[in-house]
Amino acid sequence: MPTLLLTIAYDGTRFHGWQRQPGVRTVQEELEKACAAIDLPDTHVEGAGRTDTGVHAFGQCAHIRIDRAFPPPKLQLALNSNLPEDVSVRRVVEAPDGFHARFFAGGKRYLYRVVCSPVKPAVGRPYFHWSRRAVDLDAMRRAMQCLRGEHDFASFATNPGYARSRGTVRTLHHLHLVRRRDGFDFVVQGSGFLYNMVRNLVGTLLEVGYGNRPVEWLQEVLVGADRRLGGATAPARGLYLLRVLYGADLSVPAGKEPGRAP
Amino acid sequence: MPTLLLTIAYDGTRFHGWQRQPGVRTVQEELEKACAAIDLPDTHVEGAGRTDTGVHAFGQCAHIRIDRAFPPPKLQLALNSNLPEDVSVRRVVEAPDGFHARFFAGGKRYLYRVVCSPVKPAVGRPYFHWSRRAVDLDAMRRAMQCLRGEHDFASFATNPGYARSRGTVRTLHHLHLVRRRDGFDFVVQGSGFLYNMVRNLVGTLLEVGYGNRPVEWLQEVLVGADRRLGGATAPARGLYLLRVLYGADLSVPAGKEPGRAP
Repeated sequence: MPTLLLTIAYDGTRFHGWQRQPGVRTVQEELEKACAAIDLPDTHVEGAGRTDTGVHAFGQCAHIRIDRAFPPPKLQLALNSNLPEDVSVRRVVEAPDGFHARFFAGGKRYLYRVVCSPVKPAVGRPYFHWSRRAVDLDAMRRAMQCLRGEHDFASFATNPGYARSRGTVRTLHHLHLVRRRDGFDFVVQGSGFLYNMVRNLVGTLLEVGYGNRPVEWLQEVLVGADRRLGGATAPARGLYLLRVLYGADLSVPAGKEPGRAP
Repeated sequence: MPTLLLTIAYDGTRFHGWQRQPGVRTVQEELEKACAAIDLPDTHVEGAGRTDTGVHAFGQCAHIRIDRAFPPPKLQLALNSNLPEDVSVRRVVEAPDGFHARFFAGGKRYLYRVVCSPVKPAVGRPYFHWSRRAVDLDAMRRAMQCLRGEHDFASFATNPGYARSRGTVRTLHHLHLVRRRDGFDFVVQGSGFLYNMVRNLVGTLLEVGYGNRPVEWLQEVLVGADRRLGGATAPARGLYLLRVLYGADLSVPAGKEPGRAP
């Protein structure tokens, strides 16, 4: 059975997230319907992870196992012709037997977009979090230094009970704040992310950016290992899954080191 | 009766255009509802012009006449607090008695956004026209030279009968193609625009950009004064009303020369 790795973009606005659920529109279901439409019935599309309602993706990954050879470029075109306009397969590559999009993933990279403007912005509201107040990016940059490396991120997991069952230690390899004309992007790459972790990091960093909390507060929140210490969960609409990272050789799960995007 | 000039941004995606119509959501109705909510009942919001379903605006203008003094910054805040997230009042200024947002307008500036990508884009689809093919921007730039200045633009009016009743001669002051990482923006400013004129200009220029037609073809279409000669009407989703121009003194209608945005 050939195994194929798909790289997928979607607009989360009109989806109830990635994972198939009865009665609501999900990305996984749209992909499985597109497989059925091109004579690959009962194909299970296994994602590298879930995303919530409103969260967007440029580089979600998933694998499928199919019962016959299908040249990747032809499969990509056939799927895209059968997908709605808010989901697109950006790439298809052959993967070794036994490859698994979730178990083999070595990390992920996310972007969170904030627009700062005293006047309410009206255009493109599903694609960013609006802050009426200006933020101090330098203070946020200093505060987020403490997040680099391996830490217990329990303070940034919305459901610590669920998170603790698999541990709350993760490694963040890269954290950047990129200034934009009208706000900023927070970009973070790590070995893995707890539930709502990026949105909770942004909501907490914004407290420093607003001057409500000092730079050192972030370290206190991190060490406290208690979600109640941190800031609010930033809205889903600002979050983008940029890429899922795999080892250079797709035949084994990626280690803790950052891998490459497929 | 104080007269106030509003500058308005909106996301056209979920609106059936600007103009109030029974049974559908329109920008004008949302603004009039917001006026009623702040104790300015029966206020008529008179726009500088209509926009169609799916067309966005960063700088639509409209005037209102109200029965008491209302400081402009306070009115702006009050309206924005009562408007849905996809409409925003960006500015309020006092205008002289007799000012009229439509009759006094001396011109408008529009932007049309095209994203060129062989792979279907999925994120933000309500905000641009997708072209699967690459386009030759230099050819389009050469072709559009003939549009500058005063011409009969009948070939670019979707409803020539309606248009002819008021004449089809307009003046275009500025035309630019701005290259972007993933496509281009077409920016055009003129004394006025016929129905669908920007979208018809873009659809026709794209024929040259694709290499389907030579550069000189645009001049032929223009001189032919027949809509059937031109290219398709580009989709509404790529179009943005950037600004409406008024004379430096709002007390008289702007002449044919480009004015200033309020």
